[in-house]
Amino acid sequence: VHLSQLNADAVELGQYRHFMQKEIFEQPGAVAATLEMVTGAPSLSAQLFGVEAQEVLARVNAVTIVACGTSFHAGLVARYWIEGVARIPCNPEIASEYRYRDSVPNPDALVVAISQSGETADTLAALAHAKTLGHRHTLSICNVPESALVRQSDLRFLTRAGPEIGVASTKAFTTQLATLFLLTLVLAKLRGRLTPEEEKRHIAALRHLPSALSRVLALEPQIAEWSQKFAEKEHALFLGRGVHYPIAMEGALKLKEISYIHAEAYPAGELKHGPLALVDRNMPVVAVAPNDALLEKLKANLQEVRARGGELYVFADADSQIQETEGVHIIKMTDHAGLLSPILHVIPLQLLAYHAALQKGTDVDKPRNLAKSVTVE
Amino acid sequence: VHLSQLNADAVELGQYRHFMQKEIFEQPGAVAATLEMVTGAPSLSAQLFGVEAQEVLARVNAVTIVACGTSFHAGLVARYWIEGVARIPCNPEIASEYRYRDSVPNPDALVVAISQSGETADTLAALAHAKTLGHRHTLSICNVPESALVRQSDLRFLTRAGPEIGVASTKAFTTQLATLFLLTLVLAKLRGRLTPEEEKRHIAALRHLPSALSRVLALEPQIAEWSQKFAEKEHALFLGRGVHYPIAMEGALKLKEISYIHAEAYPAGELKHGPLALVDRNMPVVAVAPNDALLEKLKANLQEVRARGGELYVFADADSQIQETEGVHIIKMTDHAGLLSPILHVIPLQLLAYHAALQKGTDVDKPRNLAKSVTVE
Repeated sequence: VHLSQLNADAVELGQYRHFMQKEIFEQPGAVAATLEMVTGAPSLSAQLFGVEAQEVLARVNAVTIVACGTSFHAGLVARYWIEGVARIPCNPEIASEYRYRDSVPNPDALVVAISQSGETADTLAALAHAKTLGHRHTLSICNVPESALVRQSDLRFLTRAGPEIGVASTKAFTTQLATLFLLTLVLAKLRGRLTPEEEKRHIAALRHLPSALSRVLALEPQIAEWSQKFAEKEHALFLGRGVHYPIAMEGALKLKEISYIHAEAYPAGELKHGPLALVDRNMPVVAVAPNDALLEKLKANLQEVRARGGELYVFADADSQIQETEGVHIIKMTDHAGLLSPILHVIPLQLLAYHAALQKGTDVDKPRNLAKSVTVE
Repeated sequence: VHLSQLNADAVELGQYRHFMQKEIFEQPGAVAATLEMVTGAPSLSAQLFGVEAQEVLARVNAVTIVACGTSFHAGLVARYWIEGVARIPCNPEIASEYRYRDSVPNPDALVVAISQSGETADTLAALAHAKTLGHRHTLSICNVPESALVRQSDLRFLTRAGPEIGVASTKAFTTQLATLFLLTLVLAKLRGRLTPEEEKRHIAALRHLPSALSRVLALEPQIAEWSQKFAEKEHALFLGRGVHYPIAMEGALKLKEISYIHAEAYPAGELKHGPLALVDRNMPVVAVAPNDALLEKLKANLQEVRARGGELYVFADADSQIQETEGVHIIKMTDHAGLLSPILHVIPLQLLAYHAALQKGTDVDKPRNLAKSVTVE
């Protein structure tokens, strides 16, 4: 897939019924385009983030991420990567909260602002607020080159998702994740936390990511079948753990936005501290569960609600040993993606939301009450 | 109210229909008992947290809080206090996530573990995990003196809420908050961030807290009336901002736990990034809105959903200038509590959940699927 072709197709629906569906299926190409400068190179360069990036990224000792909505979920995923791989403390903050909060600034932190449009009012205000607190190192991750956010940051990375028309963000999210993974690798490399072998292995994994995404997209028919069960419900609970908890949040947000089903995400361990009371036949439970151990714990937790008709829908990993049982439905992912797993696991959740909305007959690309870019506070 | 009386009454219902109602109304006494050593003294002493507390609390340069469920919400409130008043970075972490996450430890951080019972499995495991990461400074906030959590921490503060029987935690939460505010003041004082005048003023505010709590409890009839509107719904959205966002989360959790209404909390600024699509006549919106400016923004956001029958229920501050309009219902708090505002604002949300559950006829003290102390993973 070439970038020029992406751009040419971008405003036409082609074979698709909705822009959202088209954009979901454009993700292999969008991620490939975003990573083009990386996967074709022998090694990673900090300059991907700007000419001064090497000096700045080598110096920072913490990362603060400001974003809203889906972009905030990308920031939450990045926390696990940046702390786990680059070993730098990372705090994702909801932009509208951060800008009004009395926080303790660390001038050696990198402030990363994420926004598809680069015009999100709260994210722009959060970046400006960070500067007034004395923050000197700023990086924006954006899909629109000429946007305000890009102009107002020192460093920048432009995702190459192409125009996103559907209000519910999909390809912007996965290209943001790919970018944040790159940032993680660059930060790790500058700190000597990435051996040349690891670097090669990660670049190879990124090179394979588009084809892995295509294989996950091929699960659409199975997911469309599941979506019938969801379209008749008013509620859903999405569970994840670790780096897949923000993916569960993103899956719940997609379902909310376009199908108007009240979906809510919880980290799986919190289930017993309250939300388990909600679970009955009216509340399907979706688990993003690449890990078999987590799944076994979840199954134990849910045993007592099986009697009330609670049903569990699991997106397991390619190599999961888990078996379907009564009330436990499983779709296995097509690849085992290691650290990149969240980028693959969000795809079936996007498709689930899309097909549930189709069943319900909502206005998929323009859901009620929502705007594509939130340019007012 | 004397502690001995609290203990004697603790296992009998007396004039109340449920333990939860009794425990909601015990909060002025429980908070007074918890603060007894403070409000009777001329100044704050670090020794409230243990004999070695002065030395440890003066040395720490960050705070990590580990907790589950309602106790985690207390930790989220504390973040605003500790960063805003003591000017120390503070990270609240969900215990079940922290224990499995690859985080970057700061050995000079204070690890605060919060649990009513002191036997919560994930919180105990998170504390043990912190120690294996090299954390040396640990503090537990607990309601049960002989509990495992207390035995396994260097520093401790025992809340004096008395036995809590209802599964949905109420008086444990407000006494945890009172304790976390004390911790904030002690940390601030040790850093020279508290003038003697400020210290006196805060102690006076804490002394008045029990009577302020009693005045909020007197709002019960108005809240019981609102609860009729909620009992007929399956959904609710709770909005807050800043230090009141965790209070909105706690209000949503209470409603979930005992009325089985699917309530979800959002920081108000995130409304436009997705959840606004859900709002219609079936989704009442509750706002914890001490701040008039926030309320005006919320009203603007909700204007477009008024046509779909969306109704807004606001807990405003004593001195709010806001007026009721069509579809906007307001209950004003009885006092303006400044920094202690979240401790007062949670009370009407507890009462709302209790009365909604009464209307629905659920088993208030023993909600389905839940246990009082989650002693397994």
